[in-house]
Amino acid sequence: MTVNLKNLLNPNKKISKMGDFQELERIEGLSISAVSADLYGDGRDDLSLFYFKDGAKFAALYTKSNIVSESINWNLKLKNKITKALLVNTKNANTFTGKQGFQGLKELSRSLSKHLTLKLAQAPKGIRDVIDPNEIIFASTGVIGDTFPTEKIKERIPYLVQNLKDNQNKYVWFKAASSILTTDTRPKLAFEECEIGSKKILISAIAKGSGMIAPKLRGDHATMLAFLFTDANIPSSILRGLLSKNINTTFNAITVDGDTSTNDSVMIFATSKVKNSKIYNVLDPKLKGFEKALHNVMLNLSKQIVTDGEGAKKFITINVIKARSTQVAKKIAFSVANSPLVKTAVAGEDPNYGRIIMAIGKSEESIVANNLTIKFGKFTVVENGQQIDNYNEKIVKEYMKWDAIEINIELNMGKSNFTVYTCDFTKDYIDINTDYRN
Amino acid sequence: MTVNLKNLLNPNKKISKMGDFQELERIEGLSISAVSADLYGDGRDDLSLFYFKDGAKFAALYTKSNIVSESINWNLKLKNKITKALLVNTKNANTFTGKQGFQGLKELSRSLSKHLTLKLAQAPKGIRDVIDPNEIIFASTGVIGDTFPTEKIKERIPYLVQNLKDNQNKYVWFKAASSILTTDTRPKLAFEECEIGSKKILISAIAKGSGMIAPKLRGDHATMLAFLFTDANIPSSILRGLLSKNINTTFNAITVDGDTSTNDSVMIFATSKVKNSKIYNVLDPKLKGFEKALHNVMLNLSKQIVTDGEGAKKFITINVIKARSTQVAKKIAFSVANSPLVKTAVAGEDPNYGRIIMAIGKSEESIVANNLTIKFGKFTVVENGQQIDNYNEKIVKEYMKWDAIEINIELNMGKSNFTVYTCDFTKDYIDINTDYRN
Repeated sequence: MTVNLKNLLNPNKKISKMGDFQELERIEGLSISAVSADLYGDGRDDLSLFYFKDGAKFAALYTKSNIVSESINWNLKLKNKITKALLVNTKNANTFTGKQGFQGLKELSRSLSKHLTLKLAQAPKGIRDVIDPNEIIFASTGVIGDTFPTEKIKERIPYLVQNLKDNQNKYVWFKAASSILTTDTRPKLAFEECEIGSKKILISAIAKGSGMIAPKLRGDHATMLAFLFTDANIPSSILRGLLSKNINTTFNAITVDGDTSTNDSVMIFATSKVKNSKIYNVLDPKLKGFEKALHNVMLNLSKQIVTDGEGAKKFITINVIKARSTQVAKKIAFSVANSPLVKTAVAGEDPNYGRIIMAIGKSEESIVANNLTIKFGKFTVVENGQQIDNYNEKIVKEYMKWDAIEINIELNMGKSNFTVYTCDFTKDYIDINTDYRN
Repeated sequence: MTVNLKNLLNPNKKISKMGDFQELERIEGLSISAVSADLYGDGRDDLSLFYFKDGAKFAALYTKSNIVSESINWNLKLKNKITKALLVNTKNANTFTGKQGFQGLKELSRSLSKHLTLKLAQAPKGIRDVIDPNEIIFASTGVIGDTFPTEKIKERIPYLVQNLKDNQNKYVWFKAASSILTTDTRPKLAFEECEIGSKKILISAIAKGSGMIAPKLRGDHATMLAFLFTDANIPSSILRGLLSKNINTTFNAITVDGDTSTNDSVMIFATSKVKNSKIYNVLDPKLKGFEKALHNVMLNLSKQIVTDGEGAKKFITINVIKARSTQVAKKIAFSVANSPLVKTAVAGEDPNYGRIIMAIGKSEESIVANNLTIKFGKFTVVENGQQIDNYNEKIVKEYMKWDAIEINIELNMGKSNFTVYTCDFTKDYIDINTDYRN
């Protein structure tokens, strides 16, 4: 996909010379390692470790699906508020693996605990500590139902621990972000800096996701593989509150294929290395800058996931405005975003607004057809419920050739808006998914 | 698609030598005509007229979409219980055409009324009659939003009326069924015969549909382009009751792409030429045979639509059994049937049951994973919530090469079942739909 991320994503950020990628900065208190356990059989990195030597405050939202990964089940059972490490594997979702999958995590957590403790024993005095297996968080992504490759991963744990890099430069982040991918064609990275009080705070974040993307996140259960790291000192409960507040307009506002994963998770880890002023609640005015930065990182990653949607050639923004409620706007926006007929029309660069009308109609939300305005970008095609008089399809067809298409739907029935981000539907999606397990 | 319809559809019916098509029989009191108004610009038939010289009792279910065709709006405004004619056009949906589209129907109904009355004036004494424009029903299918081609259709009305054939043989039915198609690759026809009391009753029916197929039918509003004709004498209210009773397991149980049309309609016309005993209500035991025949015709056409789904190479039956309620079974079955990832896996002949698990999970219906059994055809792959011990994927892969695939999901939580019919998702679907309007 040739979309220039610079135009799509937050424009005021540093862009790395490695391409259209932001340079991520070091988060104090975090070490990173990414290696290959050869789970794909082609030597690519597929295993990554994020280690917090002095622990991190942690919050997560998990998939709303009723069948979830054993890795999520593991995390949900942990009582500890402090997290010492996050282990991520790809290729295998550890879903529908039952006891075998859960037992695998037990073994891996014990092995990881042992090797991290060994490593610490060699470290300078003062940071010596024992890692509790219950301080380890897991995330998995890949094929559902396959036996969890415990042994293959376990073998690589000594090497993984040995490779931990405390000094994460942009290459370390790039390697880590690459090691969590499945069908993605490129890593997803985002960075923001902000202030809490007068203290500078950093957020470095990575994500993966390309197919099976239609996150549905809720209070304590949400969906997406995204890992956010900050050096701020913010309690877990407030971190979770901030994720929940910002999830609906970011990860919950994207869709590639309408298929919701059993695995996806959004996690935030705060190393608390910056001694910012104490935060007492989620509405604390001191959090304003941090929340904005967090929202930007989440939205940035969300858009990156969509631009890298399986087979995607075009990035589509669907704005539904002037609805009676946000719920109505959201339902209509997703009905359009998930319609195979709308998505194939965009792939065909065809301003077939009839399919948008169909998708609005099938949402079953009551609308007044005569109030409806539809625009492709700034080009109005429908007004007061019918095609405009001097409709010039030629101009709109030119617009449809762009890499990023905006579909604007004005219901003119209220004051609520919702925006959904998606991509077009091409033959490459079919190719990727008819052949996924081979 | 190479599925042998004989195996899929009702096996005890006559199959025409024209191929896998049933031979439809003449319905007394009905005349048919199909011509080309050159709406496609390639000379194919696109306009058909079904004329009931002595009127027909009529019932219909229309799309649940909140944006509907002006043709449906027209039909809903008619007060007459008796119908004299049905005019069907393709290429243009007459949706989002506003006043222009509705005005077009007014003109067409007047022209049709005039020409039918003229024809009758030449007919033998006794059947002379005047057709009221309000006794004419319309159905349209095609592109949404394009100006309704009133003039082009109007020009052909004299010729259309002139060509009416009272003696419908299989060729007349085949031509009529072909004239209502859009992206369909073949006409859809179904026939049943039954008895009411001791009187023989015939049902001849045709349908179209290939993409934008995910009918949602309700009491007085439903969705699908299917026309059923019978010589039985059954009141309109009872005809409607019978459609409603049988719609949920037939047209409401299919999906191609999850996109619900603004146009689709199921209509039944009863010419009352057979003097069967009077029917007083929908539960009348005398209706048993007729209802069974009606159900068979509806299911037969539904399956034909799915086997001819856009780009379809495989016919998929999804049985969800032992659910707590029919609603739960239906929601899960549709969640699996509409999943692009499941549909592409089937296209790839890959028994990727992980995607079925994903789709069950994303339905958000609460299930007990440990109770779950999943079978491809008769081959069990998951039992008690995990892959069976002696799982032989090779055998299942062989099964996936078949033209018709059965996915059986046992929830083991109750006694309710639901079956959905769908097709796989191939590159041809993308081809057809990126290029639809050209």
